[in-house]
Amino acid sequence: MRNFDENSITMAVLDRVANASDGRTQQISQALVRHLHAFVKEVEPSMGEWEAAIGFLTRTGHMCDDKRQEFILLSDTLGVSMLVDAINHRGTAGATDTTVLGPFYVQDPAVFPLGSDISDGMKGQPLFVSGTVSSTDGAPLAGAAVDVWHSDEDGYYDVQQMEELGGLSMRARLFTDEQGRFHFWTIKPAAYPIPHDGPVGQMLDAQGRHPYRPAHVHFMIHAEGHDTLVTHVFVAGDEYLDSDVVFGVKDSLIQEFVRHFPGEAPDGRIMGREFHSLRYDFRLKRLSASAA
Amino acid sequence: MRNFDENSITMAVLDRVANASDGRTQQISQALVRHLHAFVKEVEPSMGEWEAAIGFLTRTGHMCDDKRQEFILLSDTLGVSMLVDAINHRGTAGATDTTVLGPFYVQDPAVFPLGSDISDGMKGQPLFVSGTVSSTDGAPLAGAAVDVWHSDEDGYYDVQQMEELGGLSMRARLFTDEQGRFHFWTIKPAAYPIPHDGPVGQMLDAQGRHPYRPAHVHFMIHAEGHDTLVTHVFVAGDEYLDSDVVFGVKDSLIQEFVRHFPGEAPDGRIMGREFHSLRYDFRLKRLSASAA
Repeated sequence: MRNFDENSITMAVLDRVANASDGRTQQISQALVRHLHAFVKEVEPSMGEWEAAIGFLTRTGHMCDDKRQEFILLSDTLGVSMLVDAINHRGTAGATDTTVLGPFYVQDPAVFPLGSDISDGMKGQPLFVSGTVSSTDGAPLAGAAVDVWHSDEDGYYDVQQMEELGGLSMRARLFTDEQGRFHFWTIKPAAYPIPHDGPVGQMLDAQGRHPYRPAHVHFMIHAEGHDTLVTHVFVAGDEYLDSDVVFGVKDSLIQEFVRHFPGEAPDGRIMGREFHSLRYDFRLKRLSASAA
Repeated sequence: MRNFDENSITMAVLDRVANASDGRTQQISQALVRHLHAFVKEVEPSMGEWEAAIGFLTRTGHMCDDKRQEFILLSDTLGVSMLVDAINHRGTAGATDTTVLGPFYVQDPAVFPLGSDISDGMKGQPLFVSGTVSSTDGAPLAGAAVDVWHSDEDGYYDVQQMEELGGLSMRARLFTDEQGRFHFWTIKPAAYPIPHDGPVGQMLDAQGRHPYRPAHVHFMIHAEGHDTLVTHVFVAGDEYLDSDVVFGVKDSLIQEFVRHFPGEAPDGRIMGREFHSLRYDFRLKRLSASAA
């Protein structure tokens, strides 16, 4: 077990990780070694390129804190997040399509009553959002937890501007009513560049790519006995729908954000200025008996 | 460019990174995407496993600072460093074999005159090290910079115990004399576990691996007109020579650390207690005219 060269090293490492007591750890470790070594053998990095890769990963890690997750951005921009999402959502015909979680989800957002304005007075075009949550068989799901979060009219999330805002905004947890319905007010989100002042931004630059995502509202919906749904609803007509930097757009998730003149909103509120409305009905896959 | 599924996403990402203005960036990006996606498709990570991977990389990055490089440890323990080393040292027949840099090299170490004790009075068994630096054609290389660094008798490097030591120790830069010779005093290094209180240690545990490296002295040798040599000399007889956690051992780099009774050392110094000596002659590859 010495004198390894470029032909023998891979087998040596595979042998070494074969001692994992857990079968899944062994499987993942061996696959990682095989694919990682195949990558290195294909590109034949110089010592300087290897050092650059170590530096890139290190800077990516250093960029991560409780408000920013650069490794999720890296996974997103390399299409890995959408691939993992697809693998984990086979056989969900009839359920709402899924897309990436993204780096801006905050665990356990504040609970708002139905009908609330969750934008906390943020500047922007008022947006009325309503919809339903049901099982794929059509049964409405009462008491489902609907977590929503989105950017402001300049494309920034609350967690990117905590000093200016002094707290979270444009994010909430709502619970569906007896008929599985929800509705709330907020402001219309904008398309935005993912944070690109770090290593992932440098990578996108080098790859000749723009850092933009089309405008969208994030949803994460939990209902008892059902798969948790992680998705967005995209704004129809956005210029980045065909070049989303994280490959997350699906036609079924694009919806018209309808523009309204001043007047009565769907919930009876009288609006003195223009507003938009979005309606989307979500369907969640029931867990199989064995998984429930 | 939307509605990607697990079959179409890889081609979509490959298309996207094809816009890199630099050919090498395009090549590395496309190879990375192909191999990374192939790995994901093979292991089919659950969402929880994907989150665990993001967390692992993040913790690895957070563990890196000016005294510790956890990503180099990761590269080393997955055999990537030795693979990159092998790829970069083809066709160096006649030159001293190379091995990993490791995470403990410090740029521009303090210069010591030949014959110095570089251990700064550290507790341990005295070790006299001597050798020569020559070109593969046998010509001695005068004025070559010989950087050396190694662990103490407990297996710890200076940078792992800066608070206790108050400064660097057991590392130096020496310059060869007119005949390409060098010699210095230090203490005998010990086998040691790589730092394993972080993510890499957790990975080794999960893989059923020990974290040890056989005892060795690091050398990095620069000489004008020659490839820089990065290598170690390992202590013959060490129990970990066949299971080095970073796969770095080569027979040609194992040398007897000769034990001597008290008396006159090779440099004429009178030793009142036992000491060891190591002799190793290094050969560096001359740069080709085009690369020089």
